[in-house]
Amino acid sequence: MDYRHKLEEDHLRIQPYIHNTPVVTSRLLDEIAGCKIFFKCENFQKMGAFKMRGANNAILHLSKEQLKKGVVTHSSGNMAQAVSLAAKSIGVPAYIVMPENAPIVKKNAVKDYGGIISISGNKIADRQQEADRIIEEKGCAFIHPSNDLDVIIGQGTAAKELLLDHADIEIIFTPVGGGGLLAGTALAATHFGDNCKVYAGEPLNADDAYRSLISGKIEFNDKPDTIADGLRTHLGDINFPIIQKHVEGIIRVEEEEIINAMRLIWERMKIIIEPSCAVPFAAVIKEKEKFRNKTVGIILSGGNVDVANLPF
Amino acid sequence: MDYRHKLEEDHLRIQPYIHNTPVVTSRLLDEIAGCKIFFKCENFQKMGAFKMRGANNAILHLSKEQLKKGVVTHSSGNMAQAVSLAAKSIGVPAYIVMPENAPIVKKNAVKDYGGIISISGNKIADRQQEADRIIEEKGCAFIHPSNDLDVIIGQGTAAKELLLDHADIEIIFTPVGGGGLLAGTALAATHFGDNCKVYAGEPLNADDAYRSLISGKIEFNDKPDTIADGLRTHLGDINFPIIQKHVEGIIRVEEEEIINAMRLIWERMKIIIEPSCAVPFAAVIKEKEKFRNKTVGIILSGGNVDVANLPF
Repeated sequence: MDYRHKLEEDHLRIQPYIHNTPVVTSRLLDEIAGCKIFFKCENFQKMGAFKMRGANNAILHLSKEQLKKGVVTHSSGNMAQAVSLAAKSIGVPAYIVMPENAPIVKKNAVKDYGGIISISGNKIADRQQEADRIIEEKGCAFIHPSNDLDVIIGQGTAAKELLLDHADIEIIFTPVGGGGLLAGTALAATHFGDNCKVYAGEPLNADDAYRSLISGKIEFNDKPDTIADGLRTHLGDINFPIIQKHVEGIIRVEEEEIINAMRLIWERMKIIIEPSCAVPFAAVIKEKEKFRNKTVGIILSGGNVDVANLPF
Repeated sequence: MDYRHKLEEDHLRIQPYIHNTPVVTSRLLDEIAGCKIFFKCENFQKMGAFKMRGANNAILHLSKEQLKKGVVTHSSGNMAQAVSLAAKSIGVPAYIVMPENAPIVKKNAVKDYGGIISISGNKIADRQQEADRIIEEKGCAFIHPSNDLDVIIGQGTAAKELLLDHADIEIIFTPVGGGGLLAGTALAATHFGDNCKVYAGEPLNADDAYRSLISGKIEFNDKPDTIADGLRTHLGDINFPIIQKHVEGIIRVEEEEIINAMRLIWERMKIIIEPSCAVPFAAVIKEKEKFRNKTVGIILSGGNVDVANLPF
């Protein structure tokens, strides 16, 4: 597969529907981290997270016939909102399967973006069953939040933009949850970076990706008890081989380190990021010596957080 | 006084020490407000607020002899930090008089920026007395946070930058507390705007400036009980005549409206602003019909807020 070509073509495809988000720096955070950091602000992306890129790319690859019937995904997080908004922007119905116990604020956000909510039981299997029922009934296309090549390439366009603006970046960091952003970033760094290495930050309490790289097979989390709610999921058979081939390492961080990094970015940079988004910066601080004086890019993945319910 | 010339000259003077802050927009907030808003992000200014502009300008106007002896101000807010950092950046000692009851987090911030703290009693008169004692003892120059022409002109450079980038702005909004930012903005709009009108937002619970414009003399607040802690002070004899001459109107908002506006900016724009900073946006929403379809500039004055102690 010519990933460079696909990244370029798909980036052009989604450009009318996404922001080329700003890149910001902070002298104070550079001092704390001991390196030069360029933060790519996907928290300022439409809908508040990088997921808009992948959702748009997947939907824009569907045939006209498929689009008429609509799309379906199951998520209680950013992908639910991203698919809703991406589908709405081209006039396509989006069915979003959400578990009964999803917070009302997340259900309202999906409704605001025009998604048609279908409530399932709380287990992953319940959600898939309900999605399958909708696919059967409506004939619509399933969009996986991370294990889909179009989604992966869409997410990779954030790192592509970052590297086009800052060609001297030596290392790019993302968080890792389902693996879509990490795999896409790894492909972008391989094809648009100048010997640019890719690392991920991962919560110690949901370190399935870290263990997967060691064991060589997709590992799972038993009970992922982490504040980084976007990172509780596991890798998939499409993104895992890409991650195995192109990712330099995964650094695990504790809950307190995530909260501390989140607070530093809030207080020093005056921008709002969600807990999952703080994990790479926490990882850079944790392994300071490894990255000393390097030029580092961090994908700030999203800013969708309940401001009335903060960990500090 | 040739204010246009002074604004240009002083802007050049302070440019090496300040950021030309970004201007951001939000389609969603435009929809809510019914007009087109350009937000000038002084929350991303050095030290987190516009006060850096005025503090630098006042200090850079002092003679070499004065600078050797240092500067003094009394403040428990952003001006304390601004004077500390501005003085530090040119190697001048800054004495900051803070009341006993100032929050420890604010005292630490001043120390971080190199300010030398002197504790006074909690009344305004106690603070001035302690400042006078330091002036007597050290011979240093007093920097008033708002009623000083160099400070006023320094604060006005934010609006000057905004108008240079967006010449079509018809109305500029600021908050009003001590009156420095409002007076400086009014001068910048008069000399760099194209028939640009200036309005202020003010908390109803500290509406001294609103009452001053009606009575024609400087009014005071008895017990200003507002979350907008930067706006509890009153106007001064230098900024009041400028405000009388050039400001179109002051719109008062209630506490709930301030909190609501702050939350909208946090949630929709993913940026951190302090309560005082939300007041102009609250005013635009409150008098929606008056500003319908206009092109509005809002100076987002600052982002220094205790994220562990939010009103929502």
